[in-house]
Amino acid sequence: MKTIRAVEFKDGKLFFINQTKLPLAEEIISTDDYERIALAIERLEVRGAPAIGVAAAYGLALALKNIPSSEQSKIFFKAFERLASTRPTAVNLFFALNEIKKVFDQNSASNLCEQILERAKTIHEDDIKLCNLIASNGLKIFSKKSRVLTHCNAGALATSGDGTAVNVIRKAFENGLVEFVFADETRPLLQGSRLTAWELDKYGIPFSINTDSTAAFLMQQNKIDLVIVGADRISANGDTANKIGTYNLAVLCKHHNIPFYIAAPSTSVDRLCPSGSHIKIEERDHRELTRIGDKQITRDEYPAYCPAFDVTPNNLITAIITEKQVYKPPYNFSHV
Amino acid sequence: MKTIRAVEFKDGKLFFINQTKLPLAEEIISTDDYERIALAIERLEVRGAPAIGVAAAYGLALALKNIPSSEQSKIFFKAFERLASTRPTAVNLFFALNEIKKVFDQNSASNLCEQILERAKTIHEDDIKLCNLIASNGLKIFSKKSRVLTHCNAGALATSGDGTAVNVIRKAFENGLVEFVFADETRPLLQGSRLTAWELDKYGIPFSINTDSTAAFLMQQNKIDLVIVGADRISANGDTANKIGTYNLAVLCKHHNIPFYIAAPSTSVDRLCPSGSHIKIEERDHRELTRIGDKQITRDEYPAYCPAFDVTPNNLITAIITEKQVYKPPYNFSHV
Repeated sequence: MKTIRAVEFKDGKLFFINQTKLPLAEEIISTDDYERIALAIERLEVRGAPAIGVAAAYGLALALKNIPSSEQSKIFFKAFERLASTRPTAVNLFFALNEIKKVFDQNSASNLCEQILERAKTIHEDDIKLCNLIASNGLKIFSKKSRVLTHCNAGALATSGDGTAVNVIRKAFENGLVEFVFADETRPLLQGSRLTAWELDKYGIPFSINTDSTAAFLMQQNKIDLVIVGADRISANGDTANKIGTYNLAVLCKHHNIPFYIAAPSTSVDRLCPSGSHIKIEERDHRELTRIGDKQITRDEYPAYCPAFDVTPNNLITAIITEKQVYKPPYNFSHV
Repeated sequence: MKTIRAVEFKDGKLFFINQTKLPLAEEIISTDDYERIALAIERLEVRGAPAIGVAAAYGLALALKNIPSSEQSKIFFKAFERLASTRPTAVNLFFALNEIKKVFDQNSASNLCEQILERAKTIHEDDIKLCNLIASNGLKIFSKKSRVLTHCNAGALATSGDGTAVNVIRKAFENGLVEFVFADETRPLLQGSRLTAWELDKYGIPFSINTDSTAAFLMQQNKIDLVIVGADRISANGDTANKIGTYNLAVLCKHHNIPFYIAAPSTSVDRLCPSGSHIKIEERDHRELTRIGDKQITRDEYPAYCPAFDVTPNNLITAIITEKQVYKPPYNFSHV
């Protein structure tokens, strides 16, 4: 099966697929400038909590390239702050930045850049391994060949490996356990109809796209066996922040008695966050609702409420699949 | 408060607002050609079950203009079939066409065109009256100043009068009973963020738009006091077909213990349809998901499931507001 890589580091540069252009164009951007990486994260050219973390880690390494020792500290913290300011919700971003900061704190100026680059590479390699382990663990949730619905994109494009929720689907399909995939288009930025559709098409997995509110009608018609989505942040009690619309799906699953799964690396768990009410929800520019790309769809002056994420309470989550195991309620991640 | 009229008949022509252009342009089209009216209904330039019915009734009158007696029967049935073929779900369309057919069956050839036009005008006047009565009855559901969510557009643009669900909101606002309106954008055709927003803005009612899947998050945050939507067809047992996403909202309301109301004229009741499972659901072209207007948003070759409507079962509907009364469960419209 085809391999997709959202971010790659080679020849001293970060290469990434510009996800805002998919699926109509497959544009690869390369840069050795951390500011360009920060912009890519802000503009969602690179998106998905694990992918953002890896890109930001490489960004810190690139920030110190050719910087004299006397300047390193100033530049490091400037780059750290810049990258940390890009997206507030994805815990992986802060995990990766803090891992790099540990290297910065522990190493001498002489080989700092190389040490940081090595750590960024291991964060990257770890993410690839986590994706594989999540997919293997995810097989356990399938009791029969299933029709699966997913929301947003938790695939290869969202990580630096093969993905989380979509990787579970991919692995299950390879094992004859997935019959069909319904992909919520995922307004406002259409990660489902653009990115998940692009991946499923590349993988040769049968699918169709639907508007987000059609998921309920599909469930009513008994067309969905299970729902699986990714996570941007999981609090210690299992409450999970993910793309806006995820909570909606979880409520629908409860009403229709359909299992609802989260698949995410344990790096998406914020042990210090006791519950969902402590998760900061990013609000995006209201023009994400009044325009699609450069196309005006309604008037910019109409007020719009545009949260990027919502929080699904733990009692609506059937299980949380991580690289370690499949967790069932009651969740307690304070020591995971 | 400003008056909006989606369709008007004057000087021997039907005038209508091209709703596909709203709110970015306010284009009025006039025609005396029933084929143009059929196209307008198919293209959703005129939309909303009651508005479609009125437009089609005028279409039959216009079809017979200047037609010699010997040709009238042939032309009438050709126009009847053409207009009946435009949209399958809205019962008002068939109600209006059949009312006109009664006039055709009962009158002589000499003054047929005038008789049909008179009947079309009374269907139009009746719709205006129904809208007013629905709004008055709708006041009864408000026990306090409320924050209301609506889906799609069941406003003046959907009828030939002041609307159904949005007219209830409008009247309640005038009576100090509406604090704020949340308008679901309503994918795929964005009737909420384009049409309902346009109306609410014209009326001066405070509102904001949101993606359809954000409704759940709004309810979770205790920001919604009630939901009110229109209907395209109500079966005898109260099961209600309305814009795709309506069933989703009804499930969300049940989960959050929020009342869920339908507002529609009794002409939307199909007494001969025993339950929702008998309602034919129109499937729209899958390019409604892959494009927005002329803008390509994902690949046309990706399969897409695009039902125009869903069916909300009667047990999720708190009450159905018509021009006659506010009906509560159990619903029995077989003699209404």
